[in-house]
Amino acid sequence: MDRAVILLSGGLDSSTTLGIAAKEHESLCALTFRYGQKHEKEIKSARKLASHYDVDEHKILDISLDKIGKSSLLKSGKAIPEKNEDIGKNIPSTYVPARNIILLSYALCYAESIGANAIYIGANARDYSGYPDCRPDFFKAFEDMAEKGTKKGVEGSTIQIKYPLIDMTKGEIVKKASELDVPLQLTWSCYKGKEKACGICDSCKLRLKGFKEAELEDPVEYVDED
Amino acid sequence: MDRAVILLSGGLDSSTTLGIAAKEHESLCALTFRYGQKHEKEIKSARKLASHYDVDEHKILDISLDKIGKSSLLKSGKAIPEKNEDIGKNIPSTYVPARNIILLSYALCYAESIGANAIYIGANARDYSGYPDCRPDFFKAFEDMAEKGTKKGVEGSTIQIKYPLIDMTKGEIVKKASELDVPLQLTWSCYKGKEKACGICDSCKLRLKGFKEAELEDPVEYVDED
Repeated sequence: MDRAVILLSGGLDSSTTLGIAAKEHESLCALTFRYGQKHEKEIKSARKLASHYDVDEHKILDISLDKIGKSSLLKSGKAIPEKNEDIGKNIPSTYVPARNIILLSYALCYAESIGANAIYIGANARDYSGYPDCRPDFFKAFEDMAEKGTKKGVEGSTIQIKYPLIDMTKGEIVKKASELDVPLQLTWSCYKGKEKACGICDSCKLRLKGFKEAELEDPVEYVDED
Repeated sequence: MDRAVILLSGGLDSSTTLGIAAKEHESLCALTFRYGQKHEKEIKSARKLASHYDVDEHKILDISLDKIGKSSLLKSGKAIPEKNEDIGKNIPSTYVPARNIILLSYALCYAESIGANAIYIGANARDYSGYPDCRPDFFKAFEDMAEKGTKKGVEGSTIQIKYPLIDMTKGEIVKKASELDVPLQLTWSCYKGKEKACGICDSCKLRLKGFKEAELEDPVEYVDED
């Protein structure tokens, strides 16, 4: 069985990645994490997307990242900065230490348990906001480590880490999602969990930039739209 | 501040590793996991050891390994085999996919958050029961991946993975623990969580072999001792 695991946060990037994976694999299983985010809105989006794509299994795991990692994205951290004028230049305060490493490690455990041969992650190195664990050489190093540290790897077969969005601009991601009919109205990107997206946090800004570049309208509602 | 994180299960190996790290670092923080083990006995041992060594912080994290990893060590898995005549020859059924990868990833998150420069793990490649994620080349690959995937690594400093027991026999580990006055009576190795250790599971067998080789008596009580 050609099966893949998808890390699905419910945001634009992971949802587009799910759309890509759906074309490439017979069976999909999705993994979503409750890691101490300040809101549950993106988890609801993940559920809707998993259901839309009719995945074979969708696991939502509670992981205790907020107990050990200091970051403003976590409940225990300080407030998320309203504006960051240096998107992409510095490692931002929303960086959670080793987050993708932990998420990929769970995906690896899951993949080996269910016999999947690929893990998809919607990471992006172009508009990546400066996260070190969103870069190709990190993913290659993770794949190498996984080959050495798992039964499957030791026995000669590998679990591939796939990051199809890595070189795309946000605009190209939006275009790709639109081509693949990814239900963008179900996705959620805003760091805040209000009814409407705030439009000013880093994540909203990148998303809006993407829709502008793609010359498409974002189906998600924003605060203060006239 | 010269600080290290110790992965502390409460067993013989991690406790000896804690004894070693205590000699090498000013500040120690310990990390213990509830990952769906069939019993809590080793977590109690971990608490006692952390207290004995007066660590600066001891975090006990609930992680959802039992929801995704299939293994007889987890509540959701089948029964632990009573006897395994091929210790060290095959990857045993007690193998939890990617377990050490997940545990080290949490330790990495914790280490980066508290400014630690080393992570200690009590892994052992000699009497390692065939787990692929207990071998030196895996740890080196993990260190390399961590360097590429963390803020600290990207900024030029690294978090070292230390595995001081890797080449020791169980006998040498017991001798080392004894030399360092590690309180072995507080440690727990048996896969079963009864009042006394079973003496027949893989873990008990390796432990007893170690004490025999070291010509020392195990202070822990076993079932059917006469």
